[in-house]
Formats: sequence, structure tokens, C-alpha cells
Amino acid sequence: MFATVMHSPGDVRFEQVDDPKIVKPTDAILKLSATCICGSDLWPYRGLQPSSGPAHMGHEYCGVVVEVGRDVRTVRPGQFVVGSFCISDNTCPHCAYGFQSSCVQREFMSGAQAPYARVPLADGTLVATAEMPADDLIPHLLATSDVLGTGWYAADAAGVGKGSTVVVVGDGAVGLMGVLSAKEMGAERIIAMSRHKDRQALATGFGATDIVAERGEEGVARINELTRGVGADAVLECVGTQEAMSQAIDCCRPGGSIGYVGVPHGVTLEGQAMFFAQRRMLGGPATVRRFLPDLIDRVLTGKIEPGKVFDLTLPLAEVAEGYRAMDDRLAIKTLLTV
Amino acid sequence: MFATVMHSPGDVRFEQVDDPKIVKPTDAILKLSATCICGSDLWPYRGLQPSSGPAHMGHEYCGVVVEVGRDVRTVRPGQFVVGSFCISDNTCPHCAYGFQSSCVQREFMSGAQAPYARVPLADGTLVATAEMPADDLIPHLLATSDVLGTGWYAADAAGVGKGSTVVVVGDGAVGLMGVLSAKEMGAERIIAMSRHKDRQALATGFGATDIVAERGEEGVARINELTRGVGADAVLECVGTQEAMSQAIDCCRPGGSIGYVGVPHGVTLEGQAMFFAQRRMLGGPATVRRFLPDLIDRVLTGKIEPGKVFDLTLPLAEVAEGYRAMDDRLAIKTLLTV
Repeated sequence: MFATVMHSPGDVRFEQVDDPKIVKPTDAILKLSATCICGSDLWPYRGLQPSSGPAHMGHEYCGVVVEVGRDVRTVRPGQFVVGSFCISDNTCPHCAYGFQSSCVQREFMSGAQAPYARVPLADGTLVATAEMPADDLIPHLLATSDVLGTGWYAADAAGVGKGSTVVVVGDGAVGLMGVLSAKEMGAERIIAMSRHKDRQALATGFGATDIVAERGEEGVARINELTRGVGADAVLECVGTQEAMSQAIDCCRPGGSIGYVGVPHGVTLEGQAMFFAQRRMLGGPATVRRFLPDLIDRVLTGKIEPGKVFDLTLPLAEVAEGYRAMDDRLAIKTLLTV
Repeated sequence: MFATVMHSPGDVRFEQVDDPKIVKPTDAILKLSATCICGSDLWPYRGLQPSSGPAHMGHEYCGVVVEVGRDVRTVRPGQFVVGSFCISDNTCPHCAYGFQSSCVQREFMSGAQAPYARVPLADGTLVATAEMPADDLIPHLLATSDVLGTGWYAADAAGVGKGSTVVVVGDGAVGLMGVLSAKEMGAERIIAMSRHKDRQALATGFGATDIVAERGEEGVARINELTRGVGADAVLECVGTQEAMSQAIDCCRPGGSIGYVGVPHGVTLEGQAMFFAQRRMLGGPATVRRFLPDLIDRVLTGKIEPGKVFDLTLPLAEVAEGYRAMDDRLAIKTLLTV
């Protein structure tokens, strides 16, 4: 088959690779219904994280099971499934505790920017729907696999609840999904920090009550003003830079919580400053598997439309163009049809 | 009056100072029933934090109100009171949120290693008992002011609950109070990390179910063994060094929580490592005022005896000896009679 391979920073190719096959008896092979490019794919694309040769890209996926290994029990060929970008057995103590993204058998999904993909630990990772979903639901279901699941985790980690005042730092796809998640969790006030008109509009559509275009100290001052000097109950940090993390901490009230889901690059926290700031912090790869059944249900019942975050759709063969568009910030998130 | 003044590291004197007086209409003056030396007093004593000239020491206190400013409403002369080491108005938004130690009017108590002390913001800071407590309850009530309140906050911040597996890093007075707190909160397993026989015995008395004498990597390996490779649900970091913080993080399970109450000295957290560790963290000066009514009630009803943490009692005039004993680790915590 033809699939997506990143050879080096900036060099993404759609090229011939081996068809995926069952390697372990717990694997499943999916025919993907759609796939997409993640903000985190841009870190290696921009040369901002070490890479070791050509990599099969793609970790957000949904599709139809075409083959399963002999030990797979909970999914079968013909079923539509969504899986987390974190592969997990869903039975180990960490999974049972709701932290499947720290599963003792954790792997990170790869090779999903392709027509077919192998999913390890299929029983623990995949969630099947009762019926084949309508085509127009595919983008929304695809979003649950990572981008929505990650925004949801950020809001959950930040303890968002009914009546919360929430700040979302970062207007990328994950930040926008954080807005949607906070709204679903009953937040009363959702302040999205965004400088881009199109993203501001999306944020408002997803439930943001206020937009703050300022950044850094000015942004913090504006949040302070909007919250009458108190700060937010919950802050979702969806970028991963030192500037964004500092902004998140400074926007939060003492005793408030920060859920951070931007993979930190060059971020350092000074112990005594954190101590006196008195913020609760939880980050990490999102525990998507914990949320998947609920998120899929919200999509199938039409409660949420997270797929609206895709503002560019390309055929898989044009994946390189999709990376370029996101790198140049011409697209928030690219859906790839297969 | 004669009171405690630290002139420079290692130089603690009991010397003539001005009697405290009402400075603001929200102040109260207490005649102290007892006072004590805090582990945090050892940081300046050891020259490990900058000091600017002579300082009136002491921030743990309980006693009888002798005078109040004209705006004080909730306490009156003759009442026995306990107050937090953090002065707070208990009405601002941070106080209302339960984080009185980040009160917008926060001050840190000082000058309590003395026969009399001024307490600012008396209405917000002090909690009066209905009756004059018996003398034998004074050490236990004094402990609620900081050392117990801080151990309690650590356990609360770490989310200790019924059935929790808890690790306490640090066998100082605060760590021991963390053990007691975890026990009161229903923890099933409480592992105290301690190398000292006397402290191990106290920890066991306060409710520790296991003692781990190893430290660093060996200590972590032992915790790992005791928790069948899972790690603790909750870890109380009661030291404040990088080594202790790393140990706390490494003993905790993914999705578990660390409450850190040792004031961090030279502690740095690397963002990406924290992210992938996936630990929830909350530190800060303890929100003692939030817990005080409950803690006082537990003491008065005989449920807890936190004053057992005092293993040396000296008359206030011998305060310098009390510092020396704690600095040399000959005493866990020194009670000063006035």
C-alpha cells in the first residue's frame, strides 16, 4: 500500500510500504475510514525533537476491522472501531485506575496516516460501535481518538465542573477541543486565549464565552481583569512551551488546577515558585481510552460535533500538503480521506 | 518581655524585646499557653535561606486572648484560641475557596516564641474553643496550628481517602503528622520512609503500617516491591529537597497525587519528565485555617494526640537549646513552655 513516511524534518512522503499484518495474536488490522495530522506531528516535522530515520506517521484513527489475531476477543472483522493514540491493555493496575496512557504495556500508535493500520492490544485499545456509523459522523468519531480525547483529558485533569471559570491557553485543535470539553462539563465561563479570527470564531462556536487576544503578561492581566482579580478555577495548557506554561500558571487562582497536554518542550518548573503559587497540576498523554465510550456516545447522539475542528480535507495522497498547511498555520487540522 | 530573636544563622537569643501591642484595629494580643520550634525555623538557623538582620521567631501558637483591636468581632479577651501560621482574613475569594494560605491579605505569623504575641487579622485567623481546655490538651492543640495542619494539608493535597495506599517521604515532625492524617482519612496502607528507630516507632504509633528505611533508588525499589510494582496512590513529600521530591515522584503511581509541604530549596521539575510521569501535584503553605475547626474538635474529643510529636520540652528561656537539639537531630520537635 501507499502510506505516509517522514524521512526527515520537512520531508513527508506518500510512498509504497509493506501492508500491515498481524504480528502478535492480540493485534487487529483496520481499514481506516479517515485519518488526520496531529499538532504533535509538527514537532518532528519542524526538527524540534530528535528523530531516528524514516517514521511511519499517524496515530489518530477510526475504521473497520478487517482481521484480528487469534487472541482478540472483544472486536471482530466488520465492526467499526475507534482507538486511542495510546495503545493499552486496559486490564493492568494503571488502566484499572483510569490511566491507560501509562499502561504497563503502553505503546504509541503509529502508521495510521495510511489506508490500513495495525493496532496492537486490540481488545484493550479499540472501542466498537453497535452499528456502522453514517459517513458524516466519521470526522467527529475520528476526533475522539486523540484531539478531542486530549482536550477532554486537559479539562478533566484541571477539574472542570459545573460553574467553573476556565481559561484555555492555546488555540490549536487541542485547545479548541478543550473549550468544547469544558462546555460539556458544565463550565460557566470559558475564556479562550486566541489571536486568530478564524480560531476565535471556532472557539466561540464550541462554547467560549470570552476571547482574550493578548498574550504573556498582558494576557494574564486581561484574565485577571475578567476574573475580578481572582484567576481561573481551571486552566488548560494546550501548547507545551515555557511561555504557555507560565501563562497558564499565572492565569490560575491559588488552589486552582492546571491540566497540561501540550507535550512540554524546554519547560522547567521551579519548585519554590510552584509551591507558593499553590496550583494543582496534572499533565500527561491523555487517558483517551477512559473517555472513549462516553465521547463516542456523545458523537452518535449528536450532542457534540468535534469534527468541526478539521478545516482542511485532503485525500491521503496529498498528506505532504496537509503537513505544510498546518506548519504554515494555514490549517488548524487536516483530515485525510482514504 | 523576653522573647526569641535570631540574629544570624546559629545565633538564637532569648532577650528583651518590646511587648507586643495592638497596631491595627483587627489585631489581637495573646498570652501564649505554649509555643514551639518548627522544622522550617531550621532553614535560616542553618543559613540555608537569606535573612535580613535580627528576626522575631515563632509562628506556631495557641493561648488566651488578652486584648483585641476595636474591629475584632469573633474573639474576645479570656477566650482560648488557636491560629494558623498563615494570617488570613478568611473572607477573600481565595479564603472562600479554601486556600487561606494564599489570602489576598496573607501574612506569615512571627514572634510567637514568646510569652505574648500579636496576631493580625484576628477574626479571620483565630479559632476559639467553647471552654478553656485542660492543660494536658495544650500540646495537641498547639500542634494543630502548623505541624499537624501541614501534615493534614499534605494528605488532603495528595487526595488521601478511604483505602488509599500512602507513602510519606520525610520522618520529621510534619511527616509524622502526615502519617497521623492519612490514618484519620482512612488510608489502608501507610508506608513511612524513616531511618531512625525513634521516629519509626512514632510513625507506627501514629498509624504507619510499613516502614522503609532505604532511601533514594533503593527506597523507591522497596516501595515498588511493597506495592506490587504499582506505586502509591498518594505521596506526602515533607522535606523540600530535590532528592526527596524525586523520591516522592518515583514512589507514586501514574494518576496518583503528590502533596508537597516541605518548602522546596533548590528543587527543579523538568516539564517533559513530569508530563510522562503523569503525577498530580499540589504544594504550598498549608491551608491550616480550613482544617482548624475540625482538627481542634478531633483533639478535644480525644480522637487524635498529635502533641506526641513533641519529644523535647524546655522552658522558653532555653529556646536556643531547643534549636540546637533539633539542628543536631537530637529532638524531633521542641515544645516551649511559657
